[in-house]
Amino acid sequence: MDAAFVGAVSARCAEVVREPLDDLPDLPGLADFLAPAQELTAGGKRGRARLCAAGWRAVGGAELAEPLIGAGCALELFQAAALVHDDVIDDAATRRGRPASHVRFAALVAGGAPDPARFGANAAILLGDLLLVLAQREMRRAADLVPDHRSAALRIWEVMTAEVAVGQYLDVRASTGELLEEPLETALDRSLTVIRHKSARYSVEHPLVLGAALAGGSPGLLASLSRVGEPLGEAFQLRDDDLGVFGDPAVTGKPAGDDLREGKRTPIVHLGLALAAPEDTAFLRARLGDPTLSAADVDRIRAILIGSGARERHESLIADRHRRATEAIAAAPLDTETRSALHALAGALTRRTA
Amino acid sequence: MDAAFVGAVSARCAEVVREPLDDLPDLPGLADFLAPAQELTAGGKRGRARLCAAGWRAVGGAELAEPLIGAGCALELFQAAALVHDDVIDDAATRRGRPASHVRFAALVAGGAPDPARFGANAAILLGDLLLVLAQREMRRAADLVPDHRSAALRIWEVMTAEVAVGQYLDVRASTGELLEEPLETALDRSLTVIRHKSARYSVEHPLVLGAALAGGSPGLLASLSRVGEPLGEAFQLRDDDLGVFGDPAVTGKPAGDDLREGKRTPIVHLGLALAAPEDTAFLRARLGDPTLSAADVDRIRAILIGSGARERHESLIADRHRRATEAIAAAPLDTETRSALHALAGALTRRTA
Repeated sequence: MDAAFVGAVSARCAEVVREPLDDLPDLPGLADFLAPAQELTAGGKRGRARLCAAGWRAVGGAELAEPLIGAGCALELFQAAALVHDDVIDDAATRRGRPASHVRFAALVAGGAPDPARFGANAAILLGDLLLVLAQREMRRAADLVPDHRSAALRIWEVMTAEVAVGQYLDVRASTGELLEEPLETALDRSLTVIRHKSARYSVEHPLVLGAALAGGSPGLLASLSRVGEPLGEAFQLRDDDLGVFGDPAVTGKPAGDDLREGKRTPIVHLGLALAAPEDTAFLRARLGDPTLSAADVDRIRAILIGSGARERHESLIADRHRRATEAIAAAPLDTETRSALHALAGALTRRTA
Repeated sequence: MDAAFVGAVSARCAEVVREPLDDLPDLPGLADFLAPAQELTAGGKRGRARLCAAGWRAVGGAELAEPLIGAGCALELFQAAALVHDDVIDDAATRRGRPASHVRFAALVAGGAPDPARFGANAAILLGDLLLVLAQREMRRAADLVPDHRSAALRIWEVMTAEVAVGQYLDVRASTGELLEEPLETALDRSLTVIRHKSARYSVEHPLVLGAALAGGSPGLLASLSRVGEPLGEAFQLRDDDLGVFGDPAVTGKPAGDDLREGKRTPIVHLGLALAAPEDTAFLRARLGDPTLSAADVDRIRAILIGSGARERHESLIADRHRRATEAIAAAPLDTETRSALHALAGALTRRTA
């Protein structure tokens, strides 16, 4: 059943990205522009689409309905837009083990252009814009299929898409400039706020609630699902942060230690700074955010995060949120099938390795 | 009357950009993120909003109606999004005589961050994303106010927003790499195609037709307005290209010769390459696209474009399109007031100095 849904979402994404402009002639160069988007939207775990389906089914929506497939596709296109811009922002070389979009664009003109990297970044900015526009269009069309629930669904979508941009800015801003000397609790609170707005709500809570809204869920049910999605989203992102430091590149598709080179001010980093021995804290302060960080540096940082107990404390943050999500699932007015689907998603989102 | 409409659009834009996220807490750092957007949306000629109003009124829409104000605001927010990303792509220092958004963001962290310019570009990518999302939301709300015309209006909006991203890509791609040896007509055709998709339709035709669709205009009337807007949009962009070379920075708010430093493959450049004497053509080929182009270089390029007759030919392209737009206004089923409003807009769009 889930495979059929994911297949339908993938097919819809492929269709949208193959011919994004119904009424435009086949412009020379358009195929080059779309190629990275086609690759990007063909893959991925479809986590947000699955969460949307879980929300939809929690209200009793049919398993393979058109509005759900459209919303799932919209979420995946929006995620692709975010990834394309993210990879420019982080100057990431790879995504899911393949060259990032801006790297692919740069390769297109290598040898001919004076500055291929700049062309690559510029083309990727525009591709992200296109994907964002296509995502909105898909969502609008999906919502039009359920006139009575259209407004409620679009409002969630609009909050989600605006919030990600704001949260991402807070993340980029926090990673720029000096690491403050401050109590651990202050730093943790701030970094958890950033996580919530840039990723946690968008990755879990909003897709789950969007699906339920689209199926006409009551305000009470939507609020119950928010209480499931909020801690689960935080757990998801904290797991992502752990994988950003400790993940296996062969599994994550991202180079090891990129978050450390970028100097991301994640909760695990703040835990490390607070709990490590003074000379280790000095090392972290000196090396985090250095784009030339070597594999040995990354190994030492990993050892510090483990040895200081920071990683263990971080795991307890994840476990705590997983527990809260589990309690919220138990408390929500859901049928047995939905409960077990949500429990399975909660496990998958917090225990994943990629 | 027009002043009242423009005032209402400006007030709406200010409101949206001041508090873009209704249900989010006042996050620290958010004010810094929004400041460049507030400045950007406070100014501008409101050309697209005015065209939308002309289309709306062509169908007999009331002068200061809510859907029109909302759509006007959506167009201005979308334009702001495009400008923020454009300025990153072109690495433009200024916009309307003030530092570009990415330059303002860079200044925010100057002294503290290892690479302020990179932070500036990254923050501007995210601000453009936020503005794009807010523009869509505004347009959706405006369209919701006219349920019977909602779909027709949103379809035009969706074509417009997707087409700009594609057209911009074609523009960036064309400016990268070698100048081909090819017949003038081939080069002109190609550069006019780029102009059409990246700017001409978006700057004139789509806003005009969007306004008419929102007011419930018939397919026949919409097609008539398209025939006005298409040549007028091309004339608008050709005038823009001329100003990019010959404009007074004190009036345009952009540094002189930036289009030449960027190596934009505009029709006027192709005319210059084809019509100039061999040593001048060689100079153009050697220097166009060089970011270090001096004021003397820019002066020489201007002299070449004038002396070769390229600028005059370019003016005749503009005049030809202005004439076609005038004929289309005469042929369209419009009342006298709308005709004279469109004639005034046609003059303003093609004879402007900024």
